[in-house]
Amino acid sequence: MIYLDNSATSFIKPSSVKNAMLEAVNKYSVNPGRGNYKLSLELSEKIYETRNNISEFFGGYGAENVVFFASCTVAINQVIFSLLGDGGHVVVSDLEHNAVMRPLYKLREKGLKISFAEVCEKDKDKTLDNFRKAINKDTKLIVCTAGSNVFGIRPPFERIAALANLYGIKILVDASQAAGIIDINMRESGIDYLCFPAHKGLYGIMGLGVLMIKEGETLTPLVYGGTGVESISESQPLLPPERYESGTLNVPGIIALNEGVKFVKSKGVFRIHKWETERLKEIYYYLKGNKRVKLYTDIPDTENYLPVLSFNTDFPSERMAELYGEKGVCIRSGLHCAPVAHKKYGTLNVGTVRISPSAFTSVNDVREFIRITGQILKLN
Amino acid sequence: MIYLDNSATSFIKPSSVKNAMLEAVNKYSVNPGRGNYKLSLELSEKIYETRNNISEFFGGYGAENVVFFASCTVAINQVIFSLLGDGGHVVVSDLEHNAVMRPLYKLREKGLKISFAEVCEKDKDKTLDNFRKAINKDTKLIVCTAGSNVFGIRPPFERIAALANLYGIKILVDASQAAGIIDINMRESGIDYLCFPAHKGLYGIMGLGVLMIKEGETLTPLVYGGTGVESISESQPLLPPERYESGTLNVPGIIALNEGVKFVKSKGVFRIHKWETERLKEIYYYLKGNKRVKLYTDIPDTENYLPVLSFNTDFPSERMAELYGEKGVCIRSGLHCAPVAHKKYGTLNVGTVRISPSAFTSVNDVREFIRITGQILKLN
Repeated sequence: MIYLDNSATSFIKPSSVKNAMLEAVNKYSVNPGRGNYKLSLELSEKIYETRNNISEFFGGYGAENVVFFASCTVAINQVIFSLLGDGGHVVVSDLEHNAVMRPLYKLREKGLKISFAEVCEKDKDKTLDNFRKAINKDTKLIVCTAGSNVFGIRPPFERIAALANLYGIKILVDASQAAGIIDINMRESGIDYLCFPAHKGLYGIMGLGVLMIKEGETLTPLVYGGTGVESISESQPLLPPERYESGTLNVPGIIALNEGVKFVKSKGVFRIHKWETERLKEIYYYLKGNKRVKLYTDIPDTENYLPVLSFNTDFPSERMAELYGEKGVCIRSGLHCAPVAHKKYGTLNVGTVRISPSAFTSVNDVREFIRITGQILKLN
Repeated sequence: MIYLDNSATSFIKPSSVKNAMLEAVNKYSVNPGRGNYKLSLELSEKIYETRNNISEFFGGYGAENVVFFASCTVAINQVIFSLLGDGGHVVVSDLEHNAVMRPLYKLREKGLKISFAEVCEKDKDKTLDNFRKAINKDTKLIVCTAGSNVFGIRPPFERIAALANLYGIKILVDASQAAGIIDINMRESGIDYLCFPAHKGLYGIMGLGVLMIKEGETLTPLVYGGTGVESISESQPLLPPERYESGTLNVPGIIALNEGVKFVKSKGVFRIHKWETERLKEIYYYLKGNKRVKLYTDIPDTENYLPVLSFNTDFPSERMAELYGEKGVCIRSGLHCAPVAHKKYGTLNVGTVRISPSAFTSVNDVREFIRITGQILKLN
């Protein structure tokens, strides 16, 4: 099997991640912070350590400001519904995922105004300028992906964050595709809210998302309930992370993510990014020479792209996915839950074939993918 | 180690549950329903099978009406914020958890009125009567636990559901402690919304909650985003389960829960309930003879109680937990996130020592617990 759908979920997980998950269930099927016996306290420490490692890795504001949710989508909803629940104006890139757009569209029913800033491929000055122009006196929040889940394009989110800081506007960076692939430093970049899932470039397991919050930022919780602290109070605790984490945590997911982050750290994000980009370039050069193929973006490089590539052929993208599937190649087709990005590239009706390698994608995987692509496009 | 904190999280998991979790990560680290390759389709089928088994087990309305969340708490929030977001009146039992009470208190700020119906231990007629009296013309929802997480007391939720049906009021049953311990049949009982976590009496892993919805009931989603279906639309899909499940699902948790449900089914809920109640009775009789012990409820039986027992000694409950902890006994102390239940029994300031066995609790575990309790209460 050749798996090139890693921007949906990274398929191969480091054995340390799987062992940690299993250890969590075998040894720590207890509620952290809710029992005062050794195992519960030990687990609380392990979870604290995970929060701390994540905070260090992303230049965050300490363990307390690392909050766990069911997914990056829920983390995004938490920020958007809290900051924009009363309307106002938001600026988003024209590459955002439905996890950003659908909460915004929902709030638009109540009067929220939405402006799109065009992300210009490989032109960061122009992109920044578009964000600047989209801001107005009512702008409360900028939401920007750290890299498109369809086309891999990287908006200059650090510069956009600096712009947001300058205007006193909050910024939420959606690092769903970027976490584990590029260096992100919340403090240095002035990011207020950073979110990402465990199960993509951080090699964790599905069912966990992270929201990192700038120190001192306080949101209205999305969910209310038991937190194991201040049980007697009728209100949620004021302080993070408990304020946002009602209910039992995904302990296996958290303990596994700790190992995922360590894995990425030991490999080095840039080395991973470079490796994946090189693999994608080989595919890109091959596809570029084929008349039946349409590419949408320029040659992959680490400066301007995440290792995610979309293309089309004269087959519908879904048919291509089927043909690949028959030959044991896993890729994704269709709309990738990001219609605004598709609209930008004229693929709203056809979708795209999307390929995304991981740190475990081999040179041989790519050769096989190329060989099979050749077979499909010549023989069918 | 003697683990008697199973109503927080069941510690020992069947090996089938752990194997399923591991298989999910090793074989199915892909997005279900979002890729058209074999693995993704296979996984979609496995998840459908899980929903279906859950629906059958709880007499639900088919696979589509089984919705996955991060926890039972989130499931409860989903129902409460959708049905009571515009105010009105709600009736709750006086045994509810903060997962129910805190969302209600939040909505009380916006005008929601809350009435408590007193649950009378072992007097189901009186309890039902209290619910009837608490209903008024503005009542939109009744929320009732299927069994207290502190005192084990079982309100007659089936009769309360029948009452709700009679008055045309919706009913949400919180089966956090009851799922896997007592038979619950949504259809037969006329329950509109039933929720429970995976990681307690169903022997799944932490990080997953389930909401079962009566066919045709439609809620306003709590979270918006990508669902893998109808990506082009600006709105959430109209149909469950996707309507409520934005973002990547907790695949290992779901696949593991399927095995947990099968395990409980093969053991038999009544056999499990009876086994645990017998273990608890041995403890109860021992404690009852001890002058330093205060018990709050009558002798455990399967008719009136879940296998959860609270007591106190002349030590503070937290100190008892420490003393037990030093001897390798895991129990929980303090408030158990249910201040209304504590208030009812006058333990709001002191909390309780809570013990809860599982299907894996042995006769010997109980003997050891009794021996250690004797040591603590005589020697300290």
